Amino acid sequence: MVDETEKQSAHRVVIVGGGFGGLYTAKALGHTPVEVTLIDKRNFHLFQPLLYQVATGSLSPADISSPLRGILNSSKNTQVLMDEIVDLDPQQQKVVLKGETLAYDTLIVATGVSHHYFGNDHWKQTAPGLKTIEDALEMRRRIFMAFEAAEKESDEEKRRAWLTFVIVGGGPTGVELAGAIAELAFKTLKRDFRKIDTTEAQVLLLEGLDRILPPYPPDLSAKAEVSLTRLGVTVETKVLVTNIDDNIVTVKRDGQEEYIPAHTVLWAAGVKASAMGQVLADRAGATLDRVGRVMVEPNLSLAGHPNIFVIGDLANFPHQGERPLPGVAPVAMQEGEYVAKLIKQQLLGNTIAPFVYKDFGSLAVIGQNEAVVDLGFVKFDGPLAWFLWIFAHIYFLIEFDNKLIVLLQWGWNYFTRKRGARIITGEPVLNDDSLYQPPISSQAPVKV
Amino acid sequence: MVDETEKQSAHRVVIVGGGFGGLYTAKALGHTPVEVTLIDKRNFHLFQPLLYQVATGSLSPADISSPLRGILNSSKNTQVLMDEIVDLDPQQQKVVLKGETLAYDTLIVATGVSHHYFGNDHWKQTAPGLKTIEDALEMRRRIFMAFEAAEKESDEEKRRAWLTFVIVGGGPTGVELAGAIAELAFKTLKRDFRKIDTTEAQVLLLEGLDRILPPYPPDLSAKAEVSLTRLGVTVETKVLVTNIDDNIVTVKRDGQEEYIPAHTVLWAAGVKASAMGQVLADRAGATLDRVGRVMVEPNLSLAGHPNIFVIGDLANFPHQGERPLPGVAPVAMQEGEYVAKLIKQQLLGNTIAPFVYKDFGSLAVIGQNEAVVDLGFVKFDGPLAWFLWIFAHIYFLIEFDNKLIVLLQWGWNYFTRKRGARIITGEPVLNDDSLYQPPISSQAPVKV
Repeated sequence: MVDETEKQSAHRVVIVGGGFGGLYTAKALGHTPVEVTLIDKRNFHLFQPLLYQVATGSLSPADISSPLRGILNSSKNTQVLMDEIVDLDPQQQKVVLKGETLAYDTLIVATGVSHHYFGNDHWKQTAPGLKTIEDALEMRRRIFMAFEAAEKESDEEKRRAWLTFVIVGGGPTGVELAGAIAELAFKTLKRDFRKIDTTEAQVLLLEGLDRILPPYPPDLSAKAEVSLTRLGVTVETKVLVTNIDDNIVTVKRDGQEEYIPAHTVLWAAGVKASAMGQVLADRAGATLDRVGRVMVEPNLSLAGHPNIFVIGDLANFPHQGERPLPGVAPVAMQEGEYVAKLIKQQLLGNTIAPFVYKDFGSLAVIGQNEAVVDLGFVKFDGPLAWFLWIFAHIYFLIEFDNKLIVLLQWGWNYFTRKRGARIITGEPVLNDDSLYQPPISSQAPVKV
Repeated sequence: MVDETEKQSAHRVVIVGGGFGGLYTAKALGHTPVEVTLIDKRNFHLFQPLLYQVATGSLSPADISSPLRGILNSSKNTQVLMDEIVDLDPQQQKVVLKGETLAYDTLIVATGVSHHYFGNDHWKQTAPGLKTIEDALEMRRRIFMAFEAAEKESDEEKRRAWLTFVIVGGGPTGVELAGAIAELAFKTLKRDFRKIDTTEAQVLLLEGLDRILPPYPPDLSAKAEVSLTRLGVTVETKVLVTNIDDNIVTVKRDGQEEYIPAHTVLWAAGVKASAMGQVLADRAGATLDRVGRVMVEPNLSLAGHPNIFVIGDLANFPHQGERPLPGVAPVAMQEGEYVAKLIKQQLLGNTIAPFVYKDFGSLAVIGQNEAVVDLGFVKFDGPLAWFLWIFAHIYFLIEFDNKLIVLLQWGWNYFTRKRGARIITGEPVLNDDSLYQPPISSQAPVKV
């Protein structure tokens, strides 16, 4: 229990969102003379970069999730609140939550982004995106159910539609999903079925621009495409998706419409800012960019509101006056640590220099032994890039137990090509009571 | 692919249910000259004895699940079908599935049991039982949400109701759940909250008979009660639950009604046979016992139907003319192996002796370093019993990767008292878009 009088006097920092941005701010403010409240609607931090491995049956949700309370329980100045933000009053310095209203001296908003279907929100039902644990389990269910449905389907054409996997969007998430599904179909599941040949599956990666991994240098994009093709993925660039329904994806290529029969369509194409962007615009006059991200000052604060900061994927920080910083974990972590430092220095009466992002490079994984790495001064691909990717991800998995278990899972998967987490869960399972119709006496074949 | 002519001539064994009974039958029939079809509505075998650890946040669903296709993929004579049984025609020797109709020469039914609320099926909503992965995740969600709700509750009395956990039924599952929740409240979560003291939680284990673990010798029951009490569980025997609603459990003790305010009620009190028992009664004249289990012949077949076998929890096998064998994994495994042997010998023209269960003893775990063991010739409790319990469970975890990962999780939990899987998932997560009401111009505090 915090002493009540002390509680009144301490500088109150409220952080909204327990992703990389919010969590790293909270961690950096632990054991300092401020009072921290971290608000999240979930009770755990999610290591999103590995979410595609939950979707494709390599890892379990808890392997890449850490309870926020557990991570922060030694920071006695920090409380975690499982709640959702409803509104904001910057004049009164209060956030309105579902459960209560909370006063702040400094507010940090780090609520991230969600999927963007470019005005086609009804595609969401047919082509789920990948942001939450539930999204990942839904993708997992669809991927593995597709193989089961194909095994039971006797019609050749319908079977092919079950064995066609379309991934929309050739950024890192699309590349990772396509690579992992190809490994499933062509390696992991190869001997599991009796009627279908899983190696006849089609894995299509569709990208609207002229190359996959557009933020990377062109030669790495080319290398990634070669690696994906070697894994069995069909990479198609300059292809626009114009419609998605239950079993047909309509695409436009060179102005011509084409139809792809496919039951499993996964969305990795676009993101838009979470609703907090709009709240900041309406209540605090924030300027939003095209996808709803909040334009921030050089010190990550909101123009006209020096005690409100926006960090992580939700922030548009014009990096050296150029493109905004990408929505990746290292940016959010560094922004969180910067804001924590700024608050601590402000309390000492000091100012600090504007935020500068230290770019340690970019990594995208394609499959086993395959990744591309761009460290700025050097670019490479292949097994070394893959090992670097593994090392970086294990290093940043926050809790030590997650690190060990993920490493062990990966080691096991590497040598056996098995994936233990390819279980289908979450669908309401019919109780067999509901299927069997007891005989009425006239049709009863036997005496009961 | 099986050669079509060979397929016509081979003896067709159809197994319904991929639990311990069905899976062990299928495993024992692999690489033999019969054609095996294993039907299950799920795509995985579930190691039910550890399900309570999923419910209490120690393990992930995939840690205790193995994909059936993966376990059986080297048995080329075996196909796995993800389907559900709708009806049975013993005269035509056919099972009717949702997707197709399947002919058999020998049928093995191993569909197990489900919860039994003794005529109060509406309690199911308030007091979930523990049979499936989804059940376990629902229990997990309720347990951890209760602590979150208590942290946000300012009313003393309501807070106490959130911190009261009632487990109905003092059998092995009830004892395991009560022990694990007590460890959560009094050890794991101790430092995680700021407003509540989790050690003020009440964990009540209610049993109608005069002692917990009724199938065990009385002195082991007494020892288990002492161990549970030491962990912080309140054990109450000779208590009947007469009503369960949203926040009150009504019990009868010595004829007097009492009311226990509690939000979290977990059901571990009774089981009833799955609907296949009724199908066998209606279609094949099977005799059912009081809870719907199927009475079987000394060789586990159905009276009058020598080619239909019922094994596992669904079967009532009058053990040495006494009580039926208990619904535990070793019974189902031995029955499955027995039936597989019987089929193989029958095909060679031989008969085999009736089934005899080899009882290697009983184990029930209470908490860390605490278990009770009854090996018949010797009974003991404490750390040695606990180590034996761990060894037995790891030994039987079917797939090697599950064994390693569970062992590692346990090792980590043992030394840190952490539980990595205490994440709350599966609930539809409100998109924050749905909470914020954008200002209408009249109330807008700032110009947008």
